Amino acid sequence: MKTRAAVMYEHNQPVVVEELELDEPKANEVLIRTAASGVCHSDLSVVTGAIYYDAAVALGHEGAGIIERVGDDVTGFSPGDHVILSFVSYCGSCRMCEMEKVCLCESYDVPRGFQLDGTYRLRNSSGDGILQMARIATMSEYMVVPKQNLVKIDEHYSLEKAALVGCGVTTGVGAVLNTCEGGARKLRSGHRDRGGVGLNAIQGAVLAQAERIIAVDIAEKKLNFAKSFGATDVVNASVYDPVEAVRELTAGLGVDYAFEVIGNPKTIVQAYNMVRAAGTAVIVGMAHHQSDVSIPAQHLVSTERRLIGSFYGSCQPKVDMPKLLGLYTEGKLKLDELITQHYRLDQINEAFADMEAGENARGVILFN
Amino acid sequence: MKTRAAVMYEHNQPVVVEELELDEPKANEVLIRTAASGVCHSDLSVVTGAIYYDAAVALGHEGAGIIERVGDDVTGFSPGDHVILSFVSYCGSCRMCEMEKVCLCESYDVPRGFQLDGTYRLRNSSGDGILQMARIATMSEYMVVPKQNLVKIDEHYSLEKAALVGCGVTTGVGAVLNTCEGGARKLRSGHRDRGGVGLNAIQGAVLAQAERIIAVDIAEKKLNFAKSFGATDVVNASVYDPVEAVRELTAGLGVDYAFEVIGNPKTIVQAYNMVRAAGTAVIVGMAHHQSDVSIPAQHLVSTERRLIGSFYGSCQPKVDMPKLLGLYTEGKLKLDELITQHYRLDQINEAFADMEAGENARGVILFN
Repeated sequence: MKTRAAVMYEHNQPVVVEELELDEPKANEVLIRTAASGVCHSDLSVVTGAIYYDAAVALGHEGAGIIERVGDDVTGFSPGDHVILSFVSYCGSCRMCEMEKVCLCESYDVPRGFQLDGTYRLRNSSGDGILQMARIATMSEYMVVPKQNLVKIDEHYSLEKAALVGCGVTTGVGAVLNTCEGGARKLRSGHRDRGGVGLNAIQGAVLAQAERIIAVDIAEKKLNFAKSFGATDVVNASVYDPVEAVRELTAGLGVDYAFEVIGNPKTIVQAYNMVRAAGTAVIVGMAHHQSDVSIPAQHLVSTERRLIGSFYGSCQPKVDMPKLLGLYTEGKLKLDELITQHYRLDQINEAFADMEAGENARGVILFN
Repeated sequence: MKTRAAVMYEHNQPVVVEELELDEPKANEVLIRTAASGVCHSDLSVVTGAIYYDAAVALGHEGAGIIERVGDDVTGFSPGDHVILSFVSYCGSCRMCEMEKVCLCESYDVPRGFQLDGTYRLRNSSGDGILQMARIATMSEYMVVPKQNLVKIDEHYSLEKAALVGCGVTTGVGAVLNTCEGGARKLRSGHRDRGGVGLNAIQGAVLAQAERIIAVDIAEKKLNFAKSFGATDVVNASVYDPVEAVRELTAGLGVDYAFEVIGNPKTIVQAYNMVRAAGTAVIVGMAHHQSDVSIPAQHLVSTERRLIGSFYGSCQPKVDMPKLLGLYTEGKLKLDELITQHYRLDQINEAFADMEAGENARGVILFN
């Protein structure tokens, strides 16, 4: 069958929207009709090569849709089911999965972007195989994906809102509630915001009843978003030194937790320097795959500061995503307000430009 | 009064043992007759400048002794009391102290090596003030120290054994039991051993009932010590790549916790690379104050590995040190076996050379 998709053919070049040939789902795979795809900074990181994929790859890793057909050996999913796409495939039974660290599942040692059997499902008009970002590629009208990447949700949820739970919401909220094991509760938190994940870290801090939530950004518009999502203080890092500003706001002590959501070595070090003794810098942003972060070694010991990573909000997709949708229904989690702009698939390069300019809380591509 | 002490006059030069003039204790201070001082790698780090003190400084930060006299306003301590010296002064009431992170006490902002009022208690024959390492200087026959650095212990304990609890034992055992909040229980642990703290981290792992304890060192003698203290596996890093060896020993997965006790940026990175996904590298060793540790930033997120510091075993001296002596009495903690060589104070340079050569589990200076 045919599908239109956003494809990265060359790093740092405009993304190409084109018609591709899509194979039928094989055993343990499912064909999805995509309803919506969020536009996340990690998509752009694939374009820049920071998150490295060989070209060509169909983009998108935050989405929701409806099952069209299921392959052999698929149980528990049927045509018509509404699903969120998880951007990790997890087995549920390996050591990491048993420790509830399913996003670190160790079972699938497949080159990036290929299906679990190591082959392609997408081909372009020249017959070349096209990889799928995160094995899903939500910026495609249709996707064939492993059943291991699906989270079934109730049909009454808007698929457009649900799409956001596929990455940004879960990553940001989970960094606070899961990675810190609720430890951020009633404590001050510093945040560094960009691309939407930061707003969701703020939502997580609100849910954790953080006493104070300090948002740091260089775009005033993003700081205004931050306030509307629950930040109690904001720091414009293009005007103030963010480390000094955060220290000043906390009587010289620093914050208990700092969440870095950009993946920039400089802001990672800033986050580390913002936390108090025995505090924790939680790195959420995916840095360039060749970037190092460098911190003073003796200081690490003498201050007992902690530097920890949070991948996908340390979530369990099948547990956490329905729970987050439930919080939305209860009015405890903002999803509507996250979506500040809709795009058509062929506007993807414009959507990336708007994201870079700090225009959106989250942009969303809608499919018909 | 007079006291003989080991003094660092110039970085990277032999330590000088000489007679100094010692002032009487001021208010809130106590005069101690030193019974024993451990020889710790951190003393040598003061000599090399890795742990930076201005010269001249009287060395020693691991010791025990008997109170001779108390200054004004000292309650709870009397002449004749047996005490372990804590190498941090803590107030017990600031925010960090209230969080039971007393070793990160924020109350005393005094330049390194001075008493809490910012003055000296020691002077040499030329009348020059001499600093005290950690405000104590256990490598001196007598010490005037803040009451905040004292831990009273039962008189029946050998002061020589108790001295070791002042740093190495508490630092090593505490890194496992306190810093990891008992989290190292029943899990595999990798260790990197040197100077005695590593052996105590092994003791901590034994107390935490770690399934497997892998010791890494470049000296066979230290690896033999490690085995006698409870290591289940040893890796000679001068023969094998320690990261590969530890992965091989753990079916390719890596350890849950790795404890680095040297403070070498290279071995810190090795410790980080030894842990499994979502595992924790605990840095105990004090690196050079100008050294950085550098880790891949994206990897930190995608593997959720944690890099955390442990200072003084995250201990509460007044709580943990008596507890550790109790474990010794119960036969659950080895102290006798730690002491492999006695020295007189004037053998301090020899003691440092033996430590560098990996000859000792711990060397101890005895005073008469």
